[in-house]
Amino acid sequence: MVRMEEESLRRLSTSIFKAAGASNQEAKVVSEILVTTSLHGVDSHGVRSIPMYINSIKEGRLKTKAKITVLKETETTAMLDDGGGFGFVAGKKAMGMAISKAKKYKMGSVGVKGPGHIGALYYYSMMAVKKNLIGITLCRGGGHGAAPYGAVEGRLGINPLCIAIPSMNEKPIVLDMATTAVAMGHLDVMSVRGQKIPDGWLIKKDGTWSNDPTAFRNGEAAPVGFGFPYSEYKGYGLSVIVEALAGGIGSGCSLDEKGFGHVFTAIDPAGYCPIGEFKKRIDSMIRHIKSAEKRPGFKDILLPGEPEWNEEERRKKEGILVDDIFWADIVKVAKELNVDAEKVIKG
Amino acid sequence: MVRMEEESLRRLSTSIFKAAGASNQEAKVVSEILVTTSLHGVDSHGVRSIPMYINSIKEGRLKTKAKITVLKETETTAMLDDGGGFGFVAGKKAMGMAISKAKKYKMGSVGVKGPGHIGALYYYSMMAVKKNLIGITLCRGGGHGAAPYGAVEGRLGINPLCIAIPSMNEKPIVLDMATTAVAMGHLDVMSVRGQKIPDGWLIKKDGTWSNDPTAFRNGEAAPVGFGFPYSEYKGYGLSVIVEALAGGIGSGCSLDEKGFGHVFTAIDPAGYCPIGEFKKRIDSMIRHIKSAEKRPGFKDILLPGEPEWNEEERRKKEGILVDDIFWADIVKVAKELNVDAEKVIKG
Repeated sequence: MVRMEEESLRRLSTSIFKAAGASNQEAKVVSEILVTTSLHGVDSHGVRSIPMYINSIKEGRLKTKAKITVLKETETTAMLDDGGGFGFVAGKKAMGMAISKAKKYKMGSVGVKGPGHIGALYYYSMMAVKKNLIGITLCRGGGHGAAPYGAVEGRLGINPLCIAIPSMNEKPIVLDMATTAVAMGHLDVMSVRGQKIPDGWLIKKDGTWSNDPTAFRNGEAAPVGFGFPYSEYKGYGLSVIVEALAGGIGSGCSLDEKGFGHVFTAIDPAGYCPIGEFKKRIDSMIRHIKSAEKRPGFKDILLPGEPEWNEEERRKKEGILVDDIFWADIVKVAKELNVDAEKVIKG
Repeated sequence: MVRMEEESLRRLSTSIFKAAGASNQEAKVVSEILVTTSLHGVDSHGVRSIPMYINSIKEGRLKTKAKITVLKETETTAMLDDGGGFGFVAGKKAMGMAISKAKKYKMGSVGVKGPGHIGALYYYSMMAVKKNLIGITLCRGGGHGAAPYGAVEGRLGINPLCIAIPSMNEKPIVLDMATTAVAMGHLDVMSVRGQKIPDGWLIKKDGTWSNDPTAFRNGEAAPVGFGFPYSEYKGYGLSVIVEALAGGIGSGCSLDEKGFGHVFTAIDPAGYCPIGEFKKRIDSMIRHIKSAEKRPGFKDILLPGEPEWNEEERRKKEGILVDDIFWADIVKVAKELNVDAEKVIKG
């Protein structure tokens, strides 16, 4: 494990992306989101992905200095095309627009179509929360790998959603989750660790469950909606809704369109009641929930997002831990781009 | 079982509510929603509840000829107080306002606070779909009976949500579900039938699971978020979001406020892309999903809401089936209010 300071990682990431051809602005936005995500403890979507994006640039699947186009705009809504560039940049712009609209009209929602990956959703929803707004981020994931309820083959994207709620003195509530039983990054981690997965996560062509975490990547099994054994239809139902909302407005929910589709929505609680009243009620709700008597084996009742807030607090003090294997990849990519990692880190 | 025509039931219900003191308008709206819900196959929330509401009126918990107050209104949002009257009437008014706002500004969202029960959520979301809008209905349910993830006692309402999506030639998608593992009406039905419930639905004070469907009504166990054993935290997370959104803006999500809280939201897909394009993509998505190879034992891949659409089609031809026990209750209530059920049914 390598322990890195937030600022050092940000400088290194920015240098790498600039060396790969990204504009100053692109390199800054992508690095900000990746490093903040690592700081937040969401390692699967953080700096470990830098080499992956650099590779996409090299292979021509990800454009630098891309032009984001506004396809449509109304008082409260808009639709953007990411122009084949960084989803992060289009996503940040989209949520920024949604926030401006919500500040003016109480509601704002901006879609993005295109192939760009946007990383961890919580970042965008939290942009809204920082402005005292409710933030909602929906992502119709690439491909059609997830099996509907009752099916043995993929028809839906890996469709995560993130809803974040502003609070007063308590930490904001952040529900950031895959609508499949398991997030893909989690399968990768389990596979590296040689762990088995339970029934109800990946279904095989013959209708039985796979217990092998590599079975999805190998094309031998498809992830299903969360909730097995009693509520898989609910997880599946949510996946269909994300597919319809984030895919239906832009690209991706039909057979021929395989790109990403995103919607970034901001809602001002002040559209219904004084913001102070709202935030006070959220704080009171959080404390009420946390005061419940615990089940055996539970040290605490946690709110959605709380484990990540705790991890962020720790990492702000102790630095960001990066696995050796990921760190080696980052240093290698830097070297190939003639970025002197050691020098950049020192500042 | 009694087999009734839609129109006859509507006339009878309207007569009963009018006889109980409801205004003409109130009686019509409540009856329309209850009968449409029964027609849709959602018996738990349909006409069987007529005696329950009449009882609430008698006991003074539900006001007739109530005054709905607009507490706040902006271009896209509003907040209503149901004035202690029928939640149905306030709910229909709220979704109507959200629809008008969405038609003008592409997004509209109206909250309702107060003790009024609004019945089945799908009705309101479908109001939006009928106008080519996406409809979202969130309900923070009364009480704090549902246990958070890791807790053995209630802190959250029974918080259902309903999201409905307009389509072109296919049936609209309607995800209408409790965020708890089991809806309360379902427990009642299982209890009448002497059935046991599985682990992961109701948790007892000692942290073990109850297998008795009456355990919640008896105060011996609390429902938990759906998803046990691997994803209960996701169902719980959604419940917290509904509590925060529907409760936070009005009433109900904090310790001292135990009323209902609702939000009715309408979003115009035309805010992002031409409506025809959107609806075509949804149709294409539906057919793509339904074309997947099925698991053993599955006759069909169903979309959210499809079982109810199928049942509605059947009932439109064959009439609405009402269980004898519920029918006897309705006739009894009618008689007490001097409504000649037989005569009213004949028209």
